[in-house]
Amino acid sequence: MLGLNYSFMMAETIGQKGITGRKLESFRVKALEALEEIKRKRYPGLAFTELPWQDVSSVKEAAKRLKELDYFLLLGIGGSALGPKCILESLSPFHNQRRDGKGPKVFIYENVDPSTLRSILASLDIKKTGINVISKSGGTSETVASFMILYEMLEKSIGREAAGRFVLTTDPEKGDLRKLASEGMSSLPIPPGVGGRYSVLSPVGLLTAEVIGVDSEELLAGAKEAHEKCLACNFWENPAIVAATLYYVMQRDEGRSIDVLLPYADRLKSFSDWFCQLWSESLGKQGKGLTPYPSVGTTDQHSQVQLWMEGPEDKVVTFLRVEDYEADFAIPDVFGQYEGMSFLRGQTLAGLIKAEEEATELALAKAGRPNMAITIPKIDAYHLGHLFYFFEVVTVLTGHFLGVNPFDQPSVEEGKKLTFGLMGKKGFEDKKREVVQARDKKSQFTI
Amino acid sequence: MLGLNYSFMMAETIGQKGITGRKLESFRVKALEALEEIKRKRYPGLAFTELPWQDVSSVKEAAKRLKELDYFLLLGIGGSALGPKCILESLSPFHNQRRDGKGPKVFIYENVDPSTLRSILASLDIKKTGINVISKSGGTSETVASFMILYEMLEKSIGREAAGRFVLTTDPEKGDLRKLASEGMSSLPIPPGVGGRYSVLSPVGLLTAEVIGVDSEELLAGAKEAHEKCLACNFWENPAIVAATLYYVMQRDEGRSIDVLLPYADRLKSFSDWFCQLWSESLGKQGKGLTPYPSVGTTDQHSQVQLWMEGPEDKVVTFLRVEDYEADFAIPDVFGQYEGMSFLRGQTLAGLIKAEEEATELALAKAGRPNMAITIPKIDAYHLGHLFYFFEVVTVLTGHFLGVNPFDQPSVEEGKKLTFGLMGKKGFEDKKREVVQARDKKSQFTI
Repeated sequence: MLGLNYSFMMAETIGQKGITGRKLESFRVKALEALEEIKRKRYPGLAFTELPWQDVSSVKEAAKRLKELDYFLLLGIGGSALGPKCILESLSPFHNQRRDGKGPKVFIYENVDPSTLRSILASLDIKKTGINVISKSGGTSETVASFMILYEMLEKSIGREAAGRFVLTTDPEKGDLRKLASEGMSSLPIPPGVGGRYSVLSPVGLLTAEVIGVDSEELLAGAKEAHEKCLACNFWENPAIVAATLYYVMQRDEGRSIDVLLPYADRLKSFSDWFCQLWSESLGKQGKGLTPYPSVGTTDQHSQVQLWMEGPEDKVVTFLRVEDYEADFAIPDVFGQYEGMSFLRGQTLAGLIKAEEEATELALAKAGRPNMAITIPKIDAYHLGHLFYFFEVVTVLTGHFLGVNPFDQPSVEEGKKLTFGLMGKKGFEDKKREVVQARDKKSQFTI
Repeated sequence: MLGLNYSFMMAETIGQKGITGRKLESFRVKALEALEEIKRKRYPGLAFTELPWQDVSSVKEAAKRLKELDYFLLLGIGGSALGPKCILESLSPFHNQRRDGKGPKVFIYENVDPSTLRSILASLDIKKTGINVISKSGGTSETVASFMILYEMLEKSIGREAAGRFVLTTDPEKGDLRKLASEGMSSLPIPPGVGGRYSVLSPVGLLTAEVIGVDSEELLAGAKEAHEKCLACNFWENPAIVAATLYYVMQRDEGRSIDVLLPYADRLKSFSDWFCQLWSESLGKQGKGLTPYPSVGTTDQHSQVQLWMEGPEDKVVTFLRVEDYEADFAIPDVFGQYEGMSFLRGQTLAGLIKAEEEATELALAKAGRPNMAITIPKIDAYHLGHLFYFFEVVTVLTGHFLGVNPFDQPSVEEGKKLTFGLMGKKGFEDKKREVVQARDKKSQFTI
């Protein structure tokens, strides 16, 4: 059970820069209409709402084999990497530094930076590595390129057994990876309607979870609870509706178009990154959209808070508070002679981080900067599953308010085509010409 | 020598959404006036412009002792951590995964998250650890709290030798850390006028550089070149002036208030984070400011580009292109039967990442989204020093255009006071009451 506290968004608490209950209430009909769309699965993309009830036996089986190896390498980009990465970093922080030797070390290659691939290869033994290739379409250039390199490398190293080291997570019917799977390579399906950024609770995220020893059913159990709460038809009792309405109104009426997600936990830093992709690609279109901002507390109090507090009034901050850090350190009685230190004696780090979180909420509110807080009892699979699903539903609802389709991403195509042109893909010769012509127009400048 | 290409910011290339040369030129007087302020060091904060000429012998000496240990732990937050972290991740990526065993493993604790401290302590052997405590004021609560914990821990473990394991990087005269240093603990100075976010080229960043085997004089040599270029009095030949003017005009006249920094290199991801603190705290005040956005390519093409391309017209994107990745992988001739893969054969990863970078620049420009590109020959200490210094000068100049003081951060005080109240610090009892009263006003909501 999570908590949502939006008092510091409301006019009755923070005054004229807040929103009145009456205004929120006026969105009741539109919100319930959006909810109906979700319930009736009006878009194929809403298939993600079925994920909490999937059968995970094939995921567990694939993970069992991978866990016997010393290294696990994931190849994917965008939604195919951000979900698994968040699960890894939230639920098994400092995973590769552990000295207990349990389970494989994990590497996620989510780019085509050759320097990173070199570093990864220097950190693992390819002979003892299992590889998960993730691409919904089966044709993502970046992922396919690294797959080809790794496949050849592994084949040179262990011969015919190489194919058995791969698990291809892809569309169940279409694409090149699926064809390879039908020729015998091991695979897991991403259900047809589920797009990359809504795929964390599909085998995309679940396989990594199982490989690092997290029970994927716990993630799904948390998502089921979120499903129940977020699809409730009572406006004021549905946290997803209230949150989506607040984000929307804050933009439409107050010009607050940047949504900062601020977890007070290092482990949830990559949750911010996951959220940013979901929010950007789902809502940024037709000239509309809200800009998500990744952050982490307390660290960013010394980096960003100055801007949020006193800069342009264009932001809404959503805190993620953690109740139980499952670790703590007492601040001991040393250097008592110094005033700046003595007040900390007898306190604990968990006490300090929680105090700073609460203080920052209030300091922002006092400066007329709206913010709300989500409370997480502790960072475990259950609550992470809940959070994922909650934000997915909030995103779909916000898309409905904005009047955009939260499941497409039409604007990434042009860059792909120009890249195809530069890489010499057939049929894209005109795109290559375009790039070359643009080079001519650009004037170089040294600094 | 870096390159700056701003063609895709200009009206002559991208049309009406660009800026005319005449408009840029109209800022000549104001820009040269700002330059004069820097040259004459009108603000104490401009002391950072002297850092390239500092004597680094004491840093090298401190590093020599620390390098003999197996682990190096840095305690700092904000500017005291982001600079060192950027140097570590840019110049020695995957540092702790290296198997050559050269030099200490490095951990940076830049928060008060107890879970992270537990993970760090589980990853190192405290008996073999040297610790760098960084706080300009000597009184940063987060840093001091972890210092107290680590000091007691180390003292329990190795007794009186504990004090010799610390290097305190702090103000040369003031503060609790300086007092401790005067009682015998080893220390390094942060020159008086140099604020946290301009301190990367002081001992704050240089010690970490030396500990990981980077010659700090290389960083400074790059900064010297930047100094020469960025303080040149010819408007059109000064890249810092051109860049600052472009950022400013894009906000003032085009409403583009979000500045995305987009390096095409995983190693420079933390350069984005460093830049974000510099830009936020320096410029976000008096209702003014530009919001910096951290990013990395190609990864964020699958996360953010949709929003930048088709979302609200509120962004300027600055690419960081790398010419030589110092590593590469040929994409081999495997799976040739699949069309989505075959066009990649014979290409290389460096070729692909560079093609995607260039394609994304052009795709944005074609969509009327202004962008510029900085080219870095390769990611080494020299060019990183150049980049740091370049962006520091750009920040000061942009602050001059905006009419704000780029060296203060008045708005982080309130949160500190409220935290002091909650932590029971004497003299802040009224702040505690304020928090408690605010709690009463908030209504809990479960999700």
